[in-house]
Amino acid sequence: MSDVRRGFQRPLIIDALQIPTPERRWFEEWKAGGVGCVHITLAIWENATETQSYIGKYRRVLLENADLVELATSAADIERIAASGRTAVVFGFQNTAPVEHDIELFGAFRDLGVCIMQLTYNLQNYIGCGYWEAKDTGVSSRFGKTAIEEMNRVGILIDLSHCGERTTLDAIEMSARPVSITHANPREFVGSPTFGANRLKTTEAIKALAARKGVIGLSPNRNMVRGGAAIKPEDFVDMVAWTVDQIGIDAVGMGTDYCPGHPPSIRTWWRYARWSREKAPAEQMKIAPHEGWQSWFSSPAHFQNIVDALSKRYSADDVAKLMGGNWLRMFREGFVPAAAAKPAGSKPAAAAS
Amino acid sequence: MSDVRRGFQRPLIIDALQIPTPERRWFEEWKAGGVGCVHITLAIWENATETQSYIGKYRRVLLENADLVELATSAADIERIAASGRTAVVFGFQNTAPVEHDIELFGAFRDLGVCIMQLTYNLQNYIGCGYWEAKDTGVSSRFGKTAIEEMNRVGILIDLSHCGERTTLDAIEMSARPVSITHANPREFVGSPTFGANRLKTTEAIKALAARKGVIGLSPNRNMVRGGAAIKPEDFVDMVAWTVDQIGIDAVGMGTDYCPGHPPSIRTWWRYARWSREKAPAEQMKIAPHEGWQSWFSSPAHFQNIVDALSKRYSADDVAKLMGGNWLRMFREGFVPAAAAKPAGSKPAAAAS
Repeated sequence: MSDVRRGFQRPLIIDALQIPTPERRWFEEWKAGGVGCVHITLAIWENATETQSYIGKYRRVLLENADLVELATSAADIERIAASGRTAVVFGFQNTAPVEHDIELFGAFRDLGVCIMQLTYNLQNYIGCGYWEAKDTGVSSRFGKTAIEEMNRVGILIDLSHCGERTTLDAIEMSARPVSITHANPREFVGSPTFGANRLKTTEAIKALAARKGVIGLSPNRNMVRGGAAIKPEDFVDMVAWTVDQIGIDAVGMGTDYCPGHPPSIRTWWRYARWSREKAPAEQMKIAPHEGWQSWFSSPAHFQNIVDALSKRYSADDVAKLMGGNWLRMFREGFVPAAAAKPAGSKPAAAAS
Repeated sequence: MSDVRRGFQRPLIIDALQIPTPERRWFEEWKAGGVGCVHITLAIWENATETQSYIGKYRRVLLENADLVELATSAADIERIAASGRTAVVFGFQNTAPVEHDIELFGAFRDLGVCIMQLTYNLQNYIGCGYWEAKDTGVSSRFGKTAIEEMNRVGILIDLSHCGERTTLDAIEMSARPVSITHANPREFVGSPTFGANRLKTTEAIKALAARKGVIGLSPNRNMVRGGAAIKPEDFVDMVAWTVDQIGIDAVGMGTDYCPGHPPSIRTWWRYARWSREKAPAEQMKIAPHEGWQSWFSSPAHFQNIVDALSKRYSADDVAKLMGGNWLRMFREGFVPAAAAKPAGSKPAAAAS
């Protein structure tokens, strides 16, 4: 596809959330789709040691596939790697479980390349609450305050995708640096999605996010779009446009939640891990997480279909912001340790185009 | 001292909370005080592996001092060991951190002899909130409900000593089996103690505890008594009597919070562990945790002074309940796995005398 597009000004494509197994076939999909950068999840419920081991494994696999991928820990890395025709990989966690309420582990994981962390996955933890708790008690704990300050300090971008409403609003307010929602759609636009409206974000939350210069990554995933599996590219663009109308062209990006390579039983792990003996519902266990996407986006190899659909409604500059420029701006600021960061209140870097 | 008392009906003495280092000298104090059983803390902030290692160490040290001590995992063990003139040791945690939100680890630790667990130490965790959080959000999480059910099932007695007020009340209500407060004094009686009134228990909480057949362990520790270090035996008895007047003679026991053998710096670990880089206040760091007790209770070797003081106000049967009988009743029920337990609503075993 890159040959076909040669001569056109192609936007940098950043997908702000995938959970691929460490296998070359997914890196080849990125290549086919011209994807310049993917933020991948390395831990959800795993503890420090398990996570450290998996990071070691993933780093090795990236090195073994250096013709396609390279670990990135800065916006400069991302630009350089994407310019080489390969995909920059950003490491992240969807939970702070690997930190085990140890303040030093934020910096230690950052040193291993982890640049993004979700405060909590679906449940209450030492920091706040996930969307799946009946009551979201917000970020009121001592460790919650400490953790946010530490992530700000070491240059770990905070992610609030699975957090509950109160925890999301509290964290946006408490963080000294802009925060992210890497993969969630707007609740008001989507209505009642497959796996519970609480997983999606209120208009109040995304407005607060954007007011603090954050970005939300939208997904065409059948489980959180209006119309489910029947969604068409123009329907996805409608959702993008609705969100842009609410919070502006600088606050919206892509975050597919594409999770290839896992057996269906991974759903039980993601949902119940070791904290319960329940299993994911039988109807969810019939289908692997990366199956059942729409024909026009059955994998990231089809990212150009989103570019094309957006290009019918937006200028090239705006498409570039939506496809990756906004994330690149956030990553440029968010991945820098505080000691090296520009003074608070300094002007954001210009969005990449 | 046991020789001096020979011929008298001596009450079984159970101290429901100490944190001794694994050293023979503390077991000798128990012997000198005629202490039949001590519940000791093996973990506060440690993770599963660290805790497993420390359990291994403590079990070895108990075996090496089998002339003085033996691990107990049932009321029958306690009675047998105490009758032999030695001290029964009950293992417990002051936090669920070692469980690492892994439901199977409750049973695994129970199999290693851990019969008592505090839901949370001073902070918010996956289950509830400690007294030191500005906001106690109670037990509203999915794991909180699951954890309480699992502790009930495997025969781990729930301890609420350091929990916040809302978490204490919620857990009393949610647990199918009676719960405990192993070491805390009544807030209304003590007034404003050294380290914050929230550490002590409201009258509402202890009444709810007693209504569900729970027991609270009281302490003469200078940090949580009226009068501080100047407290006399009769002052301690006043507090016992006030509590008995509120919740009855069957709901009160001893829980000294005696913590010998640790350097002063342990206070920083207990308070801040790894979740913060702060240190305990300098004035607390001047004195080791087991120093500074009153002359009449400078160690558990002086437990007979409490027996003598209580005997001036209470009958021998009531003294026996207060000194250990109530705890023995709780342990008899609480340490039994649910499969082996009597049907819910069965009559409690008679208090030992």
